Amino acid sequence: MDKYIALVVYGCIVGGKASDSVDIQVRIFDSTSIKDVDATLKAEQPNEYRNEFDQLVSWPLATILDIQPLEKSFESGDEIAGAITDLEWLSEFLPKGNA
Amino acid sequence: MDKYIALVVYGCIVGGKASDSVDIQVRIFDSTSIKDVDATLKAEQPNEYRNEFDQLVSWPLATILDIQPLEKSFESGDEIAGAITDLEWLSEFLPKGNA
Repeated sequence: MDKYIALVVYGCIVGGKASDSVDIQVRIFDSTSIKDVDATLKAEQPNEYRNEFDQLVSWPLATILDIQPLEKSFESGDEIAGAITDLEWLSEFLPKGNA
Repeated sequence: MDKYIALVVYGCIVGGKASDSVDIQVRIFDSTSIKDVDATLKAEQPNEYRNEFDQLVSWPLATILDIQPLEKSFESGDEIAGAITDLEWLSEFLPKGNA
């Protein structure tokens, strides 16, 4: 098993309506390949809970920006994962909701 | 020295004009505190180069979304840094350019 770093964006749906919120997460995995981390992320159930108004809040995966093996040695300041994108492009991946 | 993970957004200025591009980077640091990593990031000179049209391309720091100590042990899949934000809020941090 090696360590991998994933840079992942989750959207947010509140009571069936798309919200503007995004959750940008850096996650670490024990895995055997980038492909395996990718499959694991895509198979996860969204984080879900009820808010104070009893609406279902759901954070589905929007897009995986990058997955990189974590090298054992590095120079301080090294970039270990990242993506060049634009905010409009990113917005197209956000969940649309159904209400 | 401990290890820290920083989640950082850089904007992009091309020939003095703001562009829509963002570079979302996950960086690793040897440091003694979150404050020290923050100061290091803010003191860095932007990455700059000339493009094929001989325009200066500059990637100034837009915002630091998160800095976290990297724990020595973790469960596979753990979030090691992240931020809940929205894309419009994020866009306000992008450099404005001067042309």
